[in-house]
Parts: sequence; C-alpha cells; structure tokens
Amino acid sequence: MNYSEESLKKHHDWRGKIGIECKIPLETRDDLALAYTPGVAEPCLEINRNPEKSFELTARSNLVAVVTDGTAVLGLGDIGAEAAMPVMEGKCALFKHFADVDAFPICIKSQNVNEIVNTVRLISGSFGGINLEDISAPRCFEIEEKLKECCDIPVFHDDQHGTAIVVLAALINALKLTNRTIGETKAVINGAGAAGLAIARLLMSAGLKDIIICDRTGAIYKGRNGLNSQKADIAEVTNLHRKSGTLEDVLTGADLFIGVSSPDCVTEEMVRSMAEKPIIFALANPRPEIMPDAAKAAGAAIVGTGRSDCPNQINNLLAFPGIFRGALDVRAKEITEQMKSAAAYAIASYIPEKELSPDRIIPDPLDKGVAKAVAKAVTEAYKR
Amino acid sequence: MNYSEESLKKHHDWRGKIGIECKIPLETRDDLALAYTPGVAEPCLEINRNPEKSFELTARSNLVAVVTDGTAVLGLGDIGAEAAMPVMEGKCALFKHFADVDAFPICIKSQNVNEIVNTVRLISGSFGGINLEDISAPRCFEIEEKLKECCDIPVFHDDQHGTAIVVLAALINALKLTNRTIGETKAVINGAGAAGLAIARLLMSAGLKDIIICDRTGAIYKGRNGLNSQKADIAEVTNLHRKSGTLEDVLTGADLFIGVSSPDCVTEEMVRSMAEKPIIFALANPRPEIMPDAAKAAGAAIVGTGRSDCPNQINNLLAFPGIFRGALDVRAKEITEQMKSAAAYAIASYIPEKELSPDRIIPDPLDKGVAKAVAKAVTEAYKR
Repeated sequence: MNYSEESLKKHHDWRGKIGIECKIPLETRDDLALAYTPGVAEPCLEINRNPEKSFELTARSNLVAVVTDGTAVLGLGDIGAEAAMPVMEGKCALFKHFADVDAFPICIKSQNVNEIVNTVRLISGSFGGINLEDISAPRCFEIEEKLKECCDIPVFHDDQHGTAIVVLAALINALKLTNRTIGETKAVINGAGAAGLAIARLLMSAGLKDIIICDRTGAIYKGRNGLNSQKADIAEVTNLHRKSGTLEDVLTGADLFIGVSSPDCVTEEMVRSMAEKPIIFALANPRPEIMPDAAKAAGAAIVGTGRSDCPNQINNLLAFPGIFRGALDVRAKEITEQMKSAAAYAIASYIPEKELSPDRIIPDPLDKGVAKAVAKAVTEAYKR
Repeated sequence: MNYSEESLKKHHDWRGKIGIECKIPLETRDDLALAYTPGVAEPCLEINRNPEKSFELTARSNLVAVVTDGTAVLGLGDIGAEAAMPVMEGKCALFKHFADVDAFPICIKSQNVNEIVNTVRLISGSFGGINLEDISAPRCFEIEEKLKECCDIPVFHDDQHGTAIVVLAALINALKLTNRTIGETKAVINGAGAAGLAIARLLMSAGLKDIIICDRTGAIYKGRNGLNSQKADIAEVTNLHRKSGTLEDVLTGADLFIGVSSPDCVTEEMVRSMAEKPIIFALANPRPEIMPDAAKAAGAAIVGTGRSDCPNQINNLLAFPGIFRGALDVRAKEITEQMKSAAAYAIASYIPEKELSPDRIIPDPLDKGVAKAVAKAVTEAYKR
C-alpha cells in the first residue's frame, strides 16, 4: 500500500479522526433541566466551593490535552500548528482506542516558551493531564519544566518520557536474553535531543552507569566547548571518563547502541567494533541508523527499530495510553520517575519469560492488553 | 423534581456530559499506518502547504470551541473557570445533540481581556468556530471585537447574539398576532448588559426605531452622566427624544417590554400603563421581571419568559446550534447581521402561521427540526 496517498484519501473521507460524543439524554424538559439550566447551577456551585470537585462532576478526570506548537512534527520539523493537527488527532484517537482516555488536541500558534506555557496554564483547569507532543528541543524541556511548576495535573512530554520508557522496557528484556546486568552494560546513545536525553536519564535511574551520549559533533563530555545547558547538565552525570571522539570512536567495545538520530549513520563495521552480541536500538524513523539485517549480519544479538515492518518495534504507543490511564485513575498530580520505571517493567514483563526471543523482546503495539498492564503498574507505583 | 439535588447526583454519575469519540479503525498495522505514522505525514504536509486544507483533513470543519472565563455563569456571577465547566459541557452536549456540531469547552483562568484574546487566538487554528459564553460585560464586547479582528473563523458571543436572535424571532410572531409593524412599535428594554445591548442592535437592524434602554438608574439617553462606552454608543442610536426617568416612567405607552434584568421589577400597574395589548418578554431567569399570570391579568396580549414551565420559552437553544451548523457548513469567516436576522426569521416561520397563538409564538426548544431550519436559512443568507 502507498501509505501517503491512501492516508491523504482517508483523511479526506474522515474529516477528523476524533469527534465529540454527547453522553447524556437530551430529549425531555427534565433532561434539559438536569444537564443544563436550572439544575446545572448546583454542580457549578459545588466546584466553586471546592475546585477539586471538578474531577468528580465534569469530564476532567478522564481528559488529557495533547499539546503541540507544531515545531517538531514527526520527521517533518517545524510545520506549524494547523499542519500538526492530523498527528495530534491521531494521538487522541490512540488514547481513546487503547486506554479509553478522552484526549483533545490543542495546537498552539506560537513558538514562544512563555506564551505556550501561559496558554496551557490558563486552560489547564478543565483537563486532568497534559501530554506535550512534537515540540522542538531545547524549548520542550523548558516548557515541560515550567508547566510542571504551575499546573497541578500531570505534564508529560511523550517524545521524551514515552520513548524512554519503551526503550527501557526493550532493554530489560534484551539484557535478559544476552545475560547482562544493566549496571555492567556499556551504552552509547546517538542523538542529544529530547528523546536521547530522556532515555539517558531513565536508563540511569534504572541502574545504567556507563553511558556516552553523542551529538552531531561526537561524544558529549564535561567541559566540551559550546554545550547548551541541557547537554552541559547531562555531561555532569554521563561519560564519566570524559571520552572524546566520534560516534565511531566511542562505540568501540560498547554493549548497547541506542540511536535517536539520523538514517544510516551506523555501519556494519561499527557494529563489529562493539562488544560481543551487542544490542542495537536504531530508532530513526522511517529509516533507522542501520537496517536490522545489516546489524545482525555484523553480529548484533538483538535489534529494535521504530518500524512496524520489522521485529521489536519500539513504539511509544506501548506506554502513553497506559501511563495516562493510570495517572488519571489515581488522580496523580505528576508522573514520577517511579511511575515511568514501573511502566517500563510492566511492558517488559508483559511477555512471559519463556516466550522471550531476540525477535520478540517487546509486545505488539496493537495489543490492547499492554495499556491495562501499564496502567495497573503505574497506579501501584503511585500509591507506594 | 428537585433539580438541584438530582442534577448534582446525575453529574456525579456522568463524570462528564461529553466525551471523545474515536471515529477510525485502529485494529491493524495498516490502520495505524494510515491514521498515524508514517501515512499521516502526507495530510500534515498538505496543510503545511495550504492551511485552508485543515478544514478538509481534520476535525476542524465541524469543531467549535465553547470559551468562557467563568465570570458571568448563569445567574451565579463570577464563579471561576473550573466551576463554569458543567455549563460549558452542557452547551457542548446541546451543540452535538441538536446540530451534530462537535463542541469542546475551553475554560480560561484569566479575567484579563488581552490574555483571554491571546489564548483563544493561539489555539484557534484547530477550530472552525468560537462560541463565547458567560463572559461578563463590558469585557465580553471587547473580547469579541478583538477576536473577530484576529481570527478568520466565526466568533459569536451567544449571550449577546443568540439571545437577540431568539427575541427577534419571538417578536416577529408577536407583532403578527397583535397587528403591529416593527417600525411603529415603541419598545423598552430593561437591562443594558451583553444581552440587552445586542437585542437592541438586532431589533433596530430589523426595523425597530423607537427604543429606550434602561439600566439600574433608569433610561439611557445621550449625554447622561457616567455612561460607559457601550452605553454611550447605544445612546447615540436609541431614545432619540432623550427621555429621562425611571423604567416605570418610560414604560408608559410602550408596546413592547423586554427584560433582561432582575426578578419582579415590573408591576401589574406598570403593564397597565403600557399601550393596549402590550407584548412582554420577561427574560430574567429563573424568576422573571413579572410572572406571566400577573402580566396577563394586567392586559398583556403576549408574554414570553426564559422558563421551560411557561408558554413561549425564549431559549437560546433555538438559535446557536443551527447558527453554527450553517456557518460551519459554508465555512463562513464570520456570522453577519444578515445571518443572524435570517436565523430569527427561520425560527419565527418554523411555526405555521395558522398555528400561531398568544401561547405559541416560538417553537419548542426541544424540537430538533428548528436547528435544521436555522442552518438552512443561515447558509442561504451567507451565500447572498
């Protein structure tokens, strides 16, 4: 199938992948008097007296805003708020289908951090959570940070944390299959954008110690010239031996490569330079850093990509519906590191240990059971 | 039924009167590839090339934001954004039920005009229309004006224009039954807030010439001390003989009283002082300016109120669903005076002339056929 052509056609037919559903009867005068005036005054006053009641008396407790400024949409870059809408609607449809979360797209026509933060803050009172999406780095970090400070509902930048959670899930099972512990694993991440930095942080919180992050100019180390503040921060806690050099240089001897970068930047030779039976997560999409066949030919024990037509698809869809389902169910005020980590372990252990294999380290993204398992783990982690 | 108590109970059960509906299949890899990555890139690029395409490729063409700041909710006043949510959700449910318009509540936690305008402007790119709701005067005028300037989709403050349209509809039929023409009708409006001023303007555009508006201190006339800018503006075109005095004073000899003010401010004696067979629209809610029985006892030929338990309920529900249905269907960039007027005539003529009676000058708000008739009239007026 030519997805581009067919998708355009389908979008024409659909005229929106989500719609609004009226959940109440409106046939009689009594219906109207209960749902609207005069009856509705009482729930309004109840919330006015105690704003927390908005979670019981409105759609808020199941409602997530999917917020973007359209600056980093798919691999398309800055295409603007209107053009981001098909992706945001798709995301909302996935939220509904996989976790019965009501999600609504909010596409903001601004690239100014404070303006975006203020817009979201001002409308946050009718939502139960904020999913940030496709906002370019480094603005995404600042926006998330500021929103966490001013909103008392969970704020979650999926490109960072969703990706990190699913990578950790895949890694947990890949380590089992290759008889490694996370503490002794030597990792290299290529790509120091939103996803790369979040992956590094979550993996470290799960016990990874030896980790080098590369950007376009090579390994990031403490003191390197011209690091932005996010890279300078991560350099404090990664690459503790302050190795310099290219991706090729630092990949030598590594157990794990995680690419959130660009197509074809890893060669078979580079894979061969890694430790024995290396693990390769080549997540550039649609064309990965190295194709699975090539990586395997060069000795990779396990390969994951972002592609749906290859084994081990590392897809955020495994995480975000269940994460928000769980967070909404317990009315969490934030999504903690413990909740993210619990989500990753839940995804990993969704595959019974005896069914694990190098081509099956992670569940099928279309399996609706995953979100349930993730939600359960997230609610338990929240209560701990 | 105790509506307050029962409504609170229902709102607890409902946990939201609206929800999000996923309109597309998401069962297979192909489904996912068409609705989301990689296929979705093509509709995104199409909109990036031509933002107008967002009306064809997303939910936008059927999507209205119901925007409030929670400052003038029902008769409750300034109860805040969160507490306004039950009303806004109710409004959205009505939009869906009566006109299949997808409407979504946006409750803004600010009372600053520029901040509200900016918030709505920044998110307007994924909506097809903006319904302003329950925003206090005079801020509502400024907000509507500014939004009309900066948005290229219809902006409609329902408390002003929706009310005005339904009042005009009721008046058209009341004039027929009492053998008056609008040009010779002497009218008094009590209440110079959002609704009162909008009613005055629409009625004048329909031909009403002799009109006096009263506020709490009495008749508004050109040159009266202390008028705010809206009242000063309306004083230029109303009360041309510059009558001063109380409501009681100016009501003497009038054919038509329209109250958008406060309970019980009109006495039987005042009705008796009006012209013969006067028309009384007493719209204060839930308790009108004068109760229908009392008005009739004092000689009123026709009485309308906002109450669902009295004849002639003058209810915005007769207008806003069809107005937006029509505006969205033709992708109108604004809702013009012609469209509003056409809506009023459509509502009025929805009742066949031979079925008109003093207790039936306006259709039942629950009649779903009204929105269809209004939408048709609005689209025709737009095309003219």
